[in-house]
Amino acid sequence: MHASGEDFRTIWLNRDDPSAVQIIDQRLLPHELVIRDLRSWQDAAHAIREMLVRGAPLIGATAAWGLYLAALESRDAPVPEETVRRAAVELGKTRPTAVNLRWALERVLARMRCAESADLVQLLRDEAQAICDEDIEISRGIGHHGLRLIEEISERKNGGTVNVLTHCNAGALATINWGTATAPIYLARRKGIDVHVWVDETRPRNQGSQLTAWELSRNGIPHTLIVDNAGGHLMQRGMVDICITGTDRTTRSGDVANKIGTYLKALAAADNNIPFYVALPSTTIDWTIRDGASIPIEERDPAEVSTVRGKAGDRLVEVLMVACDTAISNYAFDVTPARLITGLITECGICDASEEGLARLFPELAKRAS
Amino acid sequence: MHASGEDFRTIWLNRDDPSAVQIIDQRLLPHELVIRDLRSWQDAAHAIREMLVRGAPLIGATAAWGLYLAALESRDAPVPEETVRRAAVELGKTRPTAVNLRWALERVLARMRCAESADLVQLLRDEAQAICDEDIEISRGIGHHGLRLIEEISERKNGGTVNVLTHCNAGALATINWGTATAPIYLARRKGIDVHVWVDETRPRNQGSQLTAWELSRNGIPHTLIVDNAGGHLMQRGMVDICITGTDRTTRSGDVANKIGTYLKALAAADNNIPFYVALPSTTIDWTIRDGASIPIEERDPAEVSTVRGKAGDRLVEVLMVACDTAISNYAFDVTPARLITGLITECGICDASEEGLARLFPELAKRAS
Repeated sequence: MHASGEDFRTIWLNRDDPSAVQIIDQRLLPHELVIRDLRSWQDAAHAIREMLVRGAPLIGATAAWGLYLAALESRDAPVPEETVRRAAVELGKTRPTAVNLRWALERVLARMRCAESADLVQLLRDEAQAICDEDIEISRGIGHHGLRLIEEISERKNGGTVNVLTHCNAGALATINWGTATAPIYLARRKGIDVHVWVDETRPRNQGSQLTAWELSRNGIPHTLIVDNAGGHLMQRGMVDICITGTDRTTRSGDVANKIGTYLKALAAADNNIPFYVALPSTTIDWTIRDGASIPIEERDPAEVSTVRGKAGDRLVEVLMVACDTAISNYAFDVTPARLITGLITECGICDASEEGLARLFPELAKRAS
Repeated sequence: MHASGEDFRTIWLNRDDPSAVQIIDQRLLPHELVIRDLRSWQDAAHAIREMLVRGAPLIGATAAWGLYLAALESRDAPVPEETVRRAAVELGKTRPTAVNLRWALERVLARMRCAESADLVQLLRDEAQAICDEDIEISRGIGHHGLRLIEEISERKNGGTVNVLTHCNAGALATINWGTATAPIYLARRKGIDVHVWVDETRPRNQGSQLTAWELSRNGIPHTLIVDNAGGHLMQRGMVDICITGTDRTTRSGDVANKIGTYLKALAAADNNIPFYVALPSTTIDWTIRDGASIPIEERDPAEVSTVRGKAGDRLVEVLMVACDTAISNYAFDVTPARLITGLITECGICDASEEGLARLFPELAKRAS
């Protein structure tokens, strides 16, 4: 990901000071690019809960780095593993919907249990780094497979513009780099394909207008911001060729929990015969559940709906948009049933959103879960 | 409509000064209740274009009062009718989608052509007043017919809460009083029915969070604000019993142009077997067109998407939410096809959203148009 003329990841260990994990504070984008230090597992938990970082893969990676910080903090304690395990419990509570969080914590704890190495800090540092490096390879894989879908549309349109609609941010900022839904788009652009992205604003936190638009702009992808209400109209008018979103949790039958409003776009795509794809690393598949209705849906602070931060002249100001006594409900995700999804784009290929489709791509994981 | 302890209409002639038509400046709600004077037809055009007033019936009424102001202004001119006709042309250009605008202007011009009275000012004043008074009766009629739908649900739920979802503001503030979609709700509440309203925020102009929530609050209707993305999730979870929206233009076959995003809610209602009704005065029926795709869809200023006004402490501040170079597209309406609409609630009764349904309720109008 390009930003301010540099190549960025979304999370990294400070090379000069290995007691600090660094992140972009995504709450301040697009207005300011601020790097923050995480120096304790509590810092990591705060960053996840308050959404300095967000996006299922990045949440998982941040939790893994949190466990490294817990090990570092307790390196002189008699049983530092205890601190790490306690931190894992607390980090696991920060966000309920994204399953990568649980996946990353379990992976690091398993590594800790099985390791013979005495250097716990080094072990957890290597594991967090591996999770990040692997995530980038996963995004590349998703990009590689999803690219074919965009190429096919481009060929069918004789090189005309391929219009992709996306919801929320399933971009580089939601992962370590490249993104999930955006990876095919970045690769298409590199191949010279004429691609344009409709960016859903994504109320209430505006991840589309504030994050996706920002990263697409930094990486030279033509795009247009729309309100969440507009996608159906664009689809009716033939202005969308394909929808690609991310997901926070995918059931073994292919139901997808993603940012609230995804379901509405999937309905509109189905109503207009537009392909609707979900891009995901296999780490967002929850093999333990079949029905999307059993995915816990996070309810967040009503202030996310009532207030917004923006620039007034040079200053960043938070304003209250509604009457102060307005009752507000704020569900963060919804579930798109598999029947509305054309296919799942994973690092291992594209499959139907179904138990059979997923089992074909991931036979080992599917078998272990059944 | 109650507000600040008084009974309000949305537009009225100043009793003490008949050269001023008065309106609530709806751009400042819910933060401030400011009354503005319209003293020329240009003031009326500005109020419609800049959305100090909005909502199909209120737009029509404001245009009618604009013609009165044109007559008043030109009362000493040799041919005051010329000024009125020129004003009608300009007023007709202020908003393209709502058909009531055209209807109200044509009605006043026809009255002017047919009248024998020499007092043009008095004639146009009476006509504008009549349009307003009739609109209130129309809203009452819609309320009366729509009430039955809410009563039926209440009975089925043994008096349990009836959850209504609405989009945008089709309330008292969109009409002269009572509203269209809200009229059945106000009447249900008066009858002691336990009714609760899910209020869609309605990006980009936030008519739901800033207008509907405000008027429901002032009139004692329990309600909860949600982002536009959330309605589908609520419907999936059985938290919505009925959807009622307004419309800016209805074709003779029952297709409905309404605030952008209405189509997405209609899709979700259909997917979850929830009745989806559209409340309308017959003045929003455009008998000249059959297919919703031929309704002109207004594109508005991108600044509506990128900026928002809110309170920072005591001050009203406008903030820029996105990067200043973000490309934005801002369609104001979409078309919900008749097949997704359970029924149309009109002042004359409820009918299917179909040519036959409308012709049954309005045989004269349908006949004249065919």
